[in-house]
Amino acid sequence: MNRSEIPTPALLLDLDRFERNIQKMAAHVKAAGKKLRPHAKTHKCPEIARRQVAAGAVGVCVAKVGEAEVMAAAGVRNLLITTEVVGPEKIGRLVGVLRRQPETLVVVDHPDNVRELGDAMAKAGLVLNVLVDVDVGGRRTGTQPGEPARDLGRQVMAQPSLHLRGLQGYAGHCAHVMGFEERRRTSRRWMGRLMKTRELFEKHGMAVDIVTGGSSGTFNIDSELEGMTELQSGSYCVMDLDYRRIGSPRGAAYDEFEMALTVLTTVVSVPSGEMAMVDAGFKAFSTDRPFVPEAVEWPGVEYSWAGDEHGRLTTAEPERLPKLGQLIEFFPPHCDPTINLYDRIYAMRGDTVEAVWEISGRGRSQ
Amino acid sequence: MNRSEIPTPALLLDLDRFERNIQKMAAHVKAAGKKLRPHAKTHKCPEIARRQVAAGAVGVCVAKVGEAEVMAAAGVRNLLITTEVVGPEKIGRLVGVLRRQPETLVVVDHPDNVRELGDAMAKAGLVLNVLVDVDVGGRRTGTQPGEPARDLGRQVMAQPSLHLRGLQGYAGHCAHVMGFEERRRTSRRWMGRLMKTRELFEKHGMAVDIVTGGSSGTFNIDSELEGMTELQSGSYCVMDLDYRRIGSPRGAAYDEFEMALTVLTTVVSVPSGEMAMVDAGFKAFSTDRPFVPEAVEWPGVEYSWAGDEHGRLTTAEPERLPKLGQLIEFFPPHCDPTINLYDRIYAMRGDTVEAVWEISGRGRSQ
Repeated sequence: MNRSEIPTPALLLDLDRFERNIQKMAAHVKAAGKKLRPHAKTHKCPEIARRQVAAGAVGVCVAKVGEAEVMAAAGVRNLLITTEVVGPEKIGRLVGVLRRQPETLVVVDHPDNVRELGDAMAKAGLVLNVLVDVDVGGRRTGTQPGEPARDLGRQVMAQPSLHLRGLQGYAGHCAHVMGFEERRRTSRRWMGRLMKTRELFEKHGMAVDIVTGGSSGTFNIDSELEGMTELQSGSYCVMDLDYRRIGSPRGAAYDEFEMALTVLTTVVSVPSGEMAMVDAGFKAFSTDRPFVPEAVEWPGVEYSWAGDEHGRLTTAEPERLPKLGQLIEFFPPHCDPTINLYDRIYAMRGDTVEAVWEISGRGRSQ
Repeated sequence: MNRSEIPTPALLLDLDRFERNIQKMAAHVKAAGKKLRPHAKTHKCPEIARRQVAAGAVGVCVAKVGEAEVMAAAGVRNLLITTEVVGPEKIGRLVGVLRRQPETLVVVDHPDNVRELGDAMAKAGLVLNVLVDVDVGGRRTGTQPGEPARDLGRQVMAQPSLHLRGLQGYAGHCAHVMGFEERRRTSRRWMGRLMKTRELFEKHGMAVDIVTGGSSGTFNIDSELEGMTELQSGSYCVMDLDYRRIGSPRGAAYDEFEMALTVLTTVVSVPSGEMAMVDAGFKAFSTDRPFVPEAVEWPGVEYSWAGDEHGRLTTAEPERLPKLGQLIEFFPPHCDPTINLYDRIYAMRGDTVEAVWEISGRGRSQ
């Protein structure tokens, strides 16, 4: 099967670029003396997870129990569920994951949740590995750093069926700070809260075998922190336009990793000499970023949204306007929610489809 | 199964409201002497399509061949594919749909597409029912009204394997015009292009058995047009916040149809006394509308985005802040792309799950 036979809109992965991304991150983390547990919420694809592990990752992070079920069933080990697992329905399914992969880690940020997890694990006859989730300024989940985190850690230790392993601190608000130096300053300041909490844990003889966090924007910043043991970067393996804007130590372009992911579309209408319509709109690209999709192969052509199923291409140079039936590839604005729209990814070597990988975790946000 | 046992985030349909919506639209269209072919791109759910047909719809519209395959396989007849079907891969699959449901309609807006459809149908030994797609100002697909549409209609008639049936004109840009009178003026003006094209077709003895268009915003405007034969409204059966804002003949609230669709979420973190986090972010709600999701049951609580998997709830009255583990329902900002994120819909009668319906067309944008 080749590129022209793929039903569009479709998600394409450039394998050469993808493989270089995987290798570069693996080499960086190894050189820094850290571990890598890349976030699989980005790709939701067991085949990509297996390749990350084959390149040296210790396991993968997942956002939800639903994704953990998919990865556990695919034989991926050393999972970390990065969102709190709350309530009997979710904890019941967590027990199912643990029966397959007992080393799975969860995070906690609330005493009630520590109790319900402790009770459920005791009842199931299991011991659950737990990290204390610390708010490092992202205003999302996480207990406050320092003493509140220490107190919660003690509550974990008081539960015979919970095993305290360390800390998580994910500074999502630092990932996309523009310019490397500014991003570094911001990330250092906020991640300092996690490092100080680590010191407090150590002082009290509490476990910090695992101190995890970090994004694709801060991978080479967080890896400098002595107290970090592992990174959970996700987007690096495929990349997107939103990350490409943030800059690197070498300048305004973020050139650490290559743009490996595209959406392949077809021109389905050329209603006038000024515009051409592709078959990709709100159901083909994520819309959570203030973004103008950027054509890959068609410089000078601009995309604008035209509803659920259409995108409008316009150009100041009418002779550049694509023709009916032509294929056009676009970089996605934000990789995670774009991938979540598709059931499969076409793994490309040049114009040839080398494999089709199932995105088995798609829609598994439960 | 009841509401508290549903894995969240989940899509819930209030059956009482949904059934009233279906009945109200069916009654309106019947009273106006029109037909209804509701757009199934909204729900992508064969069970909902079957209920629309049971209430009197002649069939359903779909956006893409992929959705047509799903509906045809589920036994839904009289399909209209509202986006041009271009290129050998798509046309090959269209032939598969026609083998099941030979009465399926397609739209055309380009001579090259008319030729490729004509050739493919001749080769397959089939006759395809075709509408000329007319641009009624939406700047999306469609040939220009009047003579260009007539010329394209003649090209359809010149193909022995194509059967001209009439016209489509979808004025998407009129659907959300705020205020009923302004929306009516706008829609009338633009749909006039379709009506004039219809007159031209009639004058030349060309088929206009079917003249189709209309949205949930203009259902009671387009149904006044003598030349329209059928409506293709979609959102009315479930509704969303974006439609609720547009106003009705009775005032600023759009009260024609009831808000039947919600997303059920769980509070998974209460990191401080000022905010609570639910398990629903970019992967649980569509983000294509400039929207603040509005809590259903928790007036005074505001939602803001907090990434792929989280939403942040804040309130000026701390005593209203939801507690860990509590369930909270939200109306979706835009129904179509929100439904497209889920594999199933929980059909609720009060707090009881009466049925679980597969959204078999989800992600079938190909």
